[in-house]
Amino acid sequence: MTRIAFDAMGGDRGPGAALDGAEAALATRKGLSFTIFGPEPTLSPLLKARPRLEAASDLSHVDKIVRMDDKPSQAVRRGRGSSMWAALEAVAEGRATVAVSSGNTGALMAMATLRLRTMADVDRPAIAAFWPRLEGRTVVLDVGANLEATPKMLADWAILGEACARAVSGTARPKVALLNIGQEELKGHDEIRQAADMIRAAAPDIDFIGFVEGGDIATGMVDVVVTDGFTGNVALKTAEGTARLVGGFVRAAFTRSIGRKLAALVARPALADIKRRMDPSGVNGGVFLGLNGLVVKSHGGADAKGFASALLMAADLAESRFTEDILRNLAAMRGEAASSDADEARAS
Amino acid sequence: MTRIAFDAMGGDRGPGAALDGAEAALATRKGLSFTIFGPEPTLSPLLKARPRLEAASDLSHVDKIVRMDDKPSQAVRRGRGSSMWAALEAVAEGRATVAVSSGNTGALMAMATLRLRTMADVDRPAIAAFWPRLEGRTVVLDVGANLEATPKMLADWAILGEACARAVSGTARPKVALLNIGQEELKGHDEIRQAADMIRAAAPDIDFIGFVEGGDIATGMVDVVVTDGFTGNVALKTAEGTARLVGGFVRAAFTRSIGRKLAALVARPALADIKRRMDPSGVNGGVFLGLNGLVVKSHGGADAKGFASALLMAADLAESRFTEDILRNLAAMRGEAASSDADEARAS
Repeated sequence: MTRIAFDAMGGDRGPGAALDGAEAALATRKGLSFTIFGPEPTLSPLLKARPRLEAASDLSHVDKIVRMDDKPSQAVRRGRGSSMWAALEAVAEGRATVAVSSGNTGALMAMATLRLRTMADVDRPAIAAFWPRLEGRTVVLDVGANLEATPKMLADWAILGEACARAVSGTARPKVALLNIGQEELKGHDEIRQAADMIRAAAPDIDFIGFVEGGDIATGMVDVVVTDGFTGNVALKTAEGTARLVGGFVRAAFTRSIGRKLAALVARPALADIKRRMDPSGVNGGVFLGLNGLVVKSHGGADAKGFASALLMAADLAESRFTEDILRNLAAMRGEAASSDADEARAS
Repeated sequence: MTRIAFDAMGGDRGPGAALDGAEAALATRKGLSFTIFGPEPTLSPLLKARPRLEAASDLSHVDKIVRMDDKPSQAVRRGRGSSMWAALEAVAEGRATVAVSSGNTGALMAMATLRLRTMADVDRPAIAAFWPRLEGRTVVLDVGANLEATPKMLADWAILGEACARAVSGTARPKVALLNIGQEELKGHDEIRQAADMIRAAAPDIDFIGFVEGGDIATGMVDVVVTDGFTGNVALKTAEGTARLVGGFVRAAFTRSIGRKLAALVARPALADIKRRMDPSGVNGGVFLGLNGLVVKSHGGADAKGFASALLMAADLAESRFTEDILRNLAAMRGEAASSDADEARAS
């Protein structure tokens, strides 16, 4: 029995879409239950209209809502007692296994860090995104929580991302790499090279393959790509923009004449396939990694299907050995660091 | 009359492809002539077989070749007298207006910087790439010459990129932006914010629109996107990888059954359109900006058509007011810096 706490008020499409998503998730996965946070007068009739969902859910009345344009610092000051905060609180107090929200990412990360705290031995939490590819998906982190990353932060995230890939994609031994550029002799900032050394030395259980370039993220040659939040966010947004551009090429090619529009009719099933595979709601949801509790961020613009994807991913994480994996690998890294400190102390 | 010096030996497809590309460029553009560098015994028969090209070209015998796997530092030590070096020399000595090579990017940049030197007032040269979009293209720089960038470097590149966009795309007043991420309060490294202030204060002639995200590069809302070489390289490679992924979705959708393959026959003209628009050889060529002389890098794997695109882009640059534009804007920036230094001196 996995209980998911979710904030019904965060998304751009309103609580109805969130509840439809929860109902869809319920239909495809056994053993889910929900605690739904938001204003009772709004949510109660919506829930009554969805009896299957109502049977699997508790409604928890919260009036206050964090707005999409609230700054993280404002949200932290003023957002306590909001539906977003309440969902995090449910995870912190063990009343739910995972929190899901479609609200403002910065506010959610700031509040989650405040309420759940960073795991011992992890310097900073990161946001992981799921990158589409021909088969499966690649976990990419950090995609925006930290502008810069120390080698230790990158090494932490390699461990967090690896456990996440195993939990969500079911890959027994995910391949992990650091994002870098290929130019000879320009290869990588010092931080990236040091992070590579650190991962090799301290996380021997991880299948670390070294460096990959931006063009390798979606090929399937690697399952986890680790980078700082600035680079990761630029890569993610650039990929989304490129997908939209190519989508535009496809649309233009199939609409520029009557003949082409007729061809589009014949090609409709194929075009629908392409559209479905490029649909961001199929891979909706970023995961906050490195906190004492699971938090999934659904895209603000997600529709019911997108919100259902985020809930199912949250369930995958909640039902996996994700946290145990992370704690074991972190302990190994800490042990290694401690013994190399001891070596250094002996040597000096 | 624009004379282009090119290294016939740099590309993966051999000198025949380079000469075919030159012949194709000649057919579409009046007033081009070439100085072709490489071993006479190899090139002479190839040139004789292309009489139109032969009439417009001088062959300059050079035996030595920089290999694709030579490191930049090796190339600089050992590459003098190579076909790559000789093409740069022709530009340095005014015997050609622009040098084109398909060779090793790092080696070409190292040698170009050594032979041509960085422009006065420019701290570091950058590599500019041309990003496809529905209409026109966006100039993105730096895509790999410098791992990190100071605010002054970013401001220099805004000026260089703006002149390049005007020369190559013919946009009278290109819109310029710095690449950033959108997260509230995480907005940008200090360097990027300082660069924005510097561009606003010191380059008033430039239509600087502030920050854009990775998803905005290909939309047409901006014509020049400035970033450090690490981020730019990751963005470029990620976009190429995403285009390949979406191409894979299209292929899969049109081949998974007999019915789909028949639909592909009907849709052939539309699919050919899409393929053509995604063909990297249509936008082949990176430009080295900030040197005392024009250098265009063609992709190592470019075919004849790709090499022709690079030569035509080189001709666009050579025939434009590119260098004058840059020098004028740099002088304005220097004047502004000098007067603000004077203000500070007076104030203190």
